[in-house]
Amino acid sequence: ELPFVLFGGMNVLESRDLALKVAESYVRATEKLGIPYVFKASFDKANRSSMHSFRGPGLDEGLKILEDIKTTFGVPLLTDIHEVEQALPAAEVCDIIQLPAFLSRQTDLVVAMAHTGAVINVKKAQFLAPQEMQHIINKCEEAGNDRIILCERGTSFGYNNLVVDMLGFGIMKRLGCPVIFDVTHSLQMPGGRSDSAGGRREAVTELARAGLSQGLAGLFLEAHPDPDQARCDGPCALRLSQLEPFLAQLKQLDDLVKSFPKLDTA
Amino acid sequence: ELPFVLFGGMNVLESRDLALKVAESYVRATEKLGIPYVFKASFDKANRSSMHSFRGPGLDEGLKILEDIKTTFGVPLLTDIHEVEQALPAAEVCDIIQLPAFLSRQTDLVVAMAHTGAVINVKKAQFLAPQEMQHIINKCEEAGNDRIILCERGTSFGYNNLVVDMLGFGIMKRLGCPVIFDVTHSLQMPGGRSDSAGGRREAVTELARAGLSQGLAGLFLEAHPDPDQARCDGPCALRLSQLEPFLAQLKQLDDLVKSFPKLDTA
Amino acid sequence: ELPFVLFGGMNVLESRDLALKVAESYVRATEKLGIPYVFKASFDKANRSSMHSFRGPGLDEGLKILEDIKTTFGVPLLTDIHEVEQALPAAEVCDIIQLPAFLSRQTDLVVAMAHTGAVINVKKAQFLAPQEMQHIINKCEEAGNDRIILCERGTSFGYNNLVVDMLGFGIMKRLGCPVIFDVTHSLQMPGGRSDSAGGRREAVTELARAGLSQGLAGLFLEAHPDPDQARCDGPCALRLSQLEPFLAQLKQLDDLVKSFPKLDTA
Amino acid sequence: ELPFVLFGGMNVLESRDLALKVAESYVRATEKLGIPYVFKASFDKANRSSMHSFRGPGLDEGLKILEDIKTTFGVPLLTDIHEVEQALPAAEVCDIIQLPAFLSRQTDLVVAMAHTGAVINVKKAQFLAPQEMQHIINKCEEAGNDRIILCERGTSFGYNNLVVDMLGFGIMKRLGCPVIFDVTHSLQMPGGRSDSAGGRREAVTELARAGLSQGLAGLFLEAHPDPDQARCDGPCALRLSQLEPFLAQLKQLDDLVKSFPKLDTA
Repeated sequence: ELPFVLFGGMNVLESRDLALKVAESYVRATEKLGIPYVFKASFDKANRSSMHSFRGPGLDEGLKILEDIKTTFGVPLLTDIHEVEQALPAAEVCDIIQLPAFLSRQTDLVVAMAHTGAVINVKKAQFLAPQEMQHIINKCEEAGNDRIILCERGTSFGYNNLVVDMLGFGIMKRLGCPVIFDVTHSLQMPGGRSDSAGGRREAVTELARAGLSQGLAGLFLEAHPDPDQARCDGPCALRLSQLEPFLAQLKQLDDLVKSFPKLDTA
Repeated sequence: ELPFVLFGGMNVLESRDLALKVAESYVRATEKLGIPYVFKASFDKANRSSMHSFRGPGLDEGLKILEDIKTTFGVPLLTDIHEVEQALPAAEVCDIIQLPAFLSRQTDLVVAMAHTGAVINVKKAQFLAPQEMQHIINKCEEAGNDRIILCERGTSFGYNNLVVDMLGFGIMKRLGCPVIFDVTHSLQMPGGRSDSAGGRREAVTELARAGLSQGLAGLFLEAHPDPDQARCDGPCALRLSQLEPFLAQLKQLDDLVKSFPKLDTA
Repeated sequence: ELPFVLFGGMNVLESRDLALKVAESYVRATEKLGIPYVFKASFDKANRSSMHSFRGPGLDEGLKILEDIKTTFGVPLLTDIHEVEQALPAAEVCDIIQLPAFLSRQTDLVVAMAHTGAVINVKKAQFLAPQEMQHIINKCEEAGNDRIILCERGTSFGYNNLVVDMLGFGIMKRLGCPVIFDVTHSLQMPGGRSDSAGGRREAVTELARAGLSQGLAGLFLEAHPDPDQARCDGPCALRLSQLEPFLAQLKQLDDLVKSFPKLDTA
Repeated sequence: ELPFVLFGGMNVLESRDLALKVAESYVRATEKLGIPYVFKASFDKANRSSMHSFRGPGLDEGLKILEDIKTTFGVPLLTDIHEVEQALPAAEVCDIIQLPAFLSRQTDLVVAMAHTGAVINVKKAQFLAPQEMQHIINKCEEAGNDRIILCERGTSFGYNNLVVDMLGFGIMKRLGCPVIFDVTHSLQMPGGRSDSAGGRREAVTELARAGLSQGLAGLFLEAHPDPDQARCDGPCALRLSQLEPFLAQLKQLDDLVKSFPKLDTA
């Protein structure tokens, strides 16, 4: 089993400067810790609770910023798309394109993404059981692309709450794809604030540990230099200044659990 | 309070002939019973579990069939759309355009639909609390359209199950929009069959009664002459031959509960 | 199908005077409306959130008050018990003894209750699926008592919330026992107040209508002359002054749905 | 932070011989690994799904077997009780007495247990939010006993399923008591078999890792030499032969996470 990869970055591209600053922090921390790294940021937040919320720079400007990051730091990129037409341009710049959770069953989008040949990161919808991810895998594969990553981000648990079912990781692993854990969005409290989701940043270390104890292919994380001023999902974002100590612990944890001999308890 | 309106039809437009046959049954039953009626059918099932599942005739052919139904029977129409570009053509033919549950937070789609001026039927997503519908109402209204209907279709309850929270109807009514009940899709068991959702057709009467006991603006129902052969959501569809006795009961129930004086128990 | 029976009364026996007053209101309203009636009250609230909360007069004093009510009004009685030793004395006074939801799987208690020969009202635990009630029925029957009533009172739905799954009534009916609906406790919000459960009294009419639309054997209801001063579960209690108009609506609803011919939609 | 304690043993005391054999395996493994150890077994399974299921030797015979184990191996003991009268005799033999999940709100039982002066292991009910454990702590403390352990064992998640909310551990820790994780019963699938609960033994390693990644005071585990023949909860029991490799991994994991400097991410 390989060490975990970090899909790390920021929620939405707030500005070119901030993106570069955030990327630099991630690059520095992951190089120091020997963690394979992919930069993640969104060019458009297409499903904000409120129309007044910041959405991002849009596709063209966003991809330019992402390209700058690739040029500057030489890191692979991940971004999420929301429409069929975005698949190709996004895949020209990014190594991994991401299928959003709410859109994970939209066949045309899945197929368009598959046709790009890029790696596809499928966010598991909050309304799907882990074994239902098989349907999305099938769609991708039948469209000619088996470079699929499955990403846990919490399941609806009553109203305004998400829970991460640790038993879901094993079920998804047995579907045959790398499985990663989006700890950031798993911390969301949907509808938790008057005009946007709340979050539980204070618990990010605990939840990340639980996830990485499962021997995963990767961790998905968002950080921000000043989460209270972040323009989206700040309540879930790690402080950028805590990136290195945060990752250092998880690196040790991941190394340890992957050193364990497999124990078949069935 | 006005008597309930029926948004009734079939899941997907399987053929022109079948659509006309289904519409005729609905028209006949609702005329006899004095139930205001809107024909509903989808031209594209954009989020099937499997790529091999039938999706429908597509926008152009679908709208033609819908127009035929309007011409033939003189009934208003409802259809659901999945992409921004579909909003305008759909609204030219249909009186009500429907925002699908999984897409209910996609801002661009909401705005495009609002701009058509058509009535918008918002399906409540399986991952949303009833009070969170306020956010979608706000988006529509800020885009200049307050002709909004809210539609319950069940909430995620553990894996592979939906539950209809009867207390959600009252919460949505207090948001100020007409509230209708999609009893058909509330009967779904997501992931219940190997390549599609299961359903609980045997309980459609019970669940419809529960919904209409709440004094709703409308009922959303799908029926099929042979549900076992239906090309989508057959396990949830009422047999077309049972339409009239089914609706007759609900009509009486609706009339009764709307005759009750309001009792403020707070 | 027989008209619904009302298991109605108050949460806990606060005093003899209040119990008589409450019973009188119920007797008057149910006589007027022709609703078969059973008086319900608890002598001990054995699982309050806080030790400082009022528990009631206890077994001996409580049964005396209940006997007074039977003598005065000639109505059958229901009370709940919590320990094996309480089964026999309670059954000597009461016609129906109730198995509390949290205790519904305690074998010794079930057997002791069954041995009394009294009718047993089994509250469905918040953690049980409707079909799991079969196990409790089996226990009663194997202990020689098949006079069993099943009572819905809501299911855990995330944290601090209950939901009533309308599809559960049909599942329980098919187990072969009369099914009743405890609308009062289904309104609870567990942990909703700092030292006790909250409630949603304002929605009691809506939820009761939904339940009775299912064609049930009975309704379970608690009322109080001044719910804000009630010593237990006031937030869920109907105002006693609203009893008659409340029941009048439900009586009409029950009569109507039971007049409907059965429609087999399977 | 101290290393984790193991509350380990078997579900129900099937026989004296088997209990001694199981205890010996635990003692040997925990001594070798340096894990503080408490033997756990039940003398009565008071809430089996079926009356025909094995319940155990009862209080008197059960306590004798437990005493033998203490004499033979010099280990502290834990057992669960179900009635007020059992508190004192159980506490005379056992160091820790356990409050069952379904009974965790029964005030008289809590108080009787508190009065023994023994340490009390409170199983968190499947219907309680983590913060609601405060009420049970209050009851114990007001009855004069603050030697309380809180034990996670899964939360109702839809029907016939439990989920362990990793964020609940932190919430319970902040209530000020040691928190342990019953991984065995968290694997239950309630109502999963025709006459008893099912289980997910194959996932015990994954779930235990997730729990112990949280820096807990202890782990609760049941094992059996032949789980398929176990007389209760076999589907959740670890094979006794896998005890040492299983614990060895968890010991390393626990040591690692407790070596991490605390990172305050709030």
